[in-house]
Amino acid sequence: MAEKTEAKREKVLYVVGMGPGEEKMMTLQAREILENCDVIAGYTVYVDLLRERFPDKEFYSTAMKQEWKRCREVLRMADAGKKAVMVCSGDAGVYGMASPILECSEEFPQVKVRVIPGVTAALAGSALLGAPLAHDFAVISLSDLLTPMEQIEKRLRYAALGDFAICLYNPSSRKRADYLKRACDVLLECRDRQTLCAVVRQIGREGEEFHLLSLEELREYQADMFTTVFIGNASTKKVRGRMVTPRGYKKEGEKE
Amino acid sequence: MAEKTEAKREKVLYVVGMGPGEEKMMTLQAREILENCDVIAGYTVYVDLLRERFPDKEFYSTAMKQEWKRCREVLRMADAGKKAVMVCSGDAGVYGMASPILECSEEFPQVKVRVIPGVTAALAGSALLGAPLAHDFAVISLSDLLTPMEQIEKRLRYAALGDFAICLYNPSSRKRADYLKRACDVLLECRDRQTLCAVVRQIGREGEEFHLLSLEELREYQADMFTTVFIGNASTKKVRGRMVTPRGYKKEGEKE
Repeated sequence: MAEKTEAKREKVLYVVGMGPGEEKMMTLQAREILENCDVIAGYTVYVDLLRERFPDKEFYSTAMKQEWKRCREVLRMADAGKKAVMVCSGDAGVYGMASPILECSEEFPQVKVRVIPGVTAALAGSALLGAPLAHDFAVISLSDLLTPMEQIEKRLRYAALGDFAICLYNPSSRKRADYLKRACDVLLECRDRQTLCAVVRQIGREGEEFHLLSLEELREYQADMFTTVFIGNASTKKVRGRMVTPRGYKKEGEKE
Repeated sequence: MAEKTEAKREKVLYVVGMGPGEEKMMTLQAREILENCDVIAGYTVYVDLLRERFPDKEFYSTAMKQEWKRCREVLRMADAGKKAVMVCSGDAGVYGMASPILECSEEFPQVKVRVIPGVTAALAGSALLGAPLAHDFAVISLSDLLTPMEQIEKRLRYAALGDFAICLYNPSSRKRADYLKRACDVLLECRDRQTLCAVVRQIGREGEEFHLLSLEELREYQADMFTTVFIGNASTKKVRGRMVTPRGYKKEGEKE
């Protein structure tokens, strides 16, 4: 009992990954925390979805690019004793809010930050496609909002040289319409133009769809901000219309 | 109604990622599929855990290294009309069973394979640590069961050169006691010896623990088969005892 009382007094901010879309892709833990919290903070678009689902909660949302303000505000609420949750789509750590919240939390030493993982788009998209990330893989964002383009291109080059399967986040936006093409040009320096690739749109949401295509064809594809891109390694192949990377270079078990 | 009847007649094999440990880290979707299936197949150790939880199900387990046999058998059950599930720890795609099941399913064209994603150890370990994978990252397995050691070392080298945050799976086993040391030697060729690293043990299970250490110290660490290893990028830092990778190289929002 003493422990329970103590736990109640502890100031905690949860950073929760909600998975890629529908509620069923959330973990049990994530849902339980949402059900038991007082206030939910996040991007306007996610918060609006949760408002209907949890009508009795307090909500706090800010637009994109005001993330530090949002972090500080939600930490302040937790510090004031509210059970506060910062929600992210996908996983809380992968390009999510866990990192800025932790950095910002140095100003709030009484608040413990607990990160609750979720299914990121790389895993959800991969499941839909088949198994493109079944061997070593790299995840790279094409957004140059916080990263210089040279650094992004360097990563693409080394991921290609290492024959990693690659998942690309943020392949396009209004301001970066040709970024996927530029990324493909870098990859084509050392990867075969027939390398099996795929695009997945609206993962875990209505209208979810995928297409398999070659790296050469990917170069011409017009991605939007709802697209996640997959590039196979040298062994990735089409199996029954799906994208499958074998789990190694040696043959497995009975197939030998 | 017509659609429902049709769905019932469809032959489906689910490959389900259960997350890293406790049931609460499973997705709602994964649990629903386990609740509604007839037969659950997988490694002996996972199947034994589920046996208690779902006492009325049929179970099918085989030891390690008999995976192709297990794939064929569970596909045969699905083909015979049973609602069959192949379970994997973590995610079904990341070094999981989705890939061999899909390859094997070419022999069973009537059976549709549906992959259900889960929280892989990279994400669950990352959440515990803070946010080590908040920027571009690579996942590499040190197991040379199916991959030649030269290929593994090549991947380590390029991931290090690209300044990816890195998550290492299977850092050790009885036969490969010195593999983590070898991996660190490759990384130390181009990464600073003070690079922030971490080891996480028993993710999502009782006895879960983590330690932060430098790359130099990681070289001397004796990992076991329950360990997952994280290597930071050049910007990764310690924040309140946690491991945090900033989300970019430029400064964010209000901090500018």
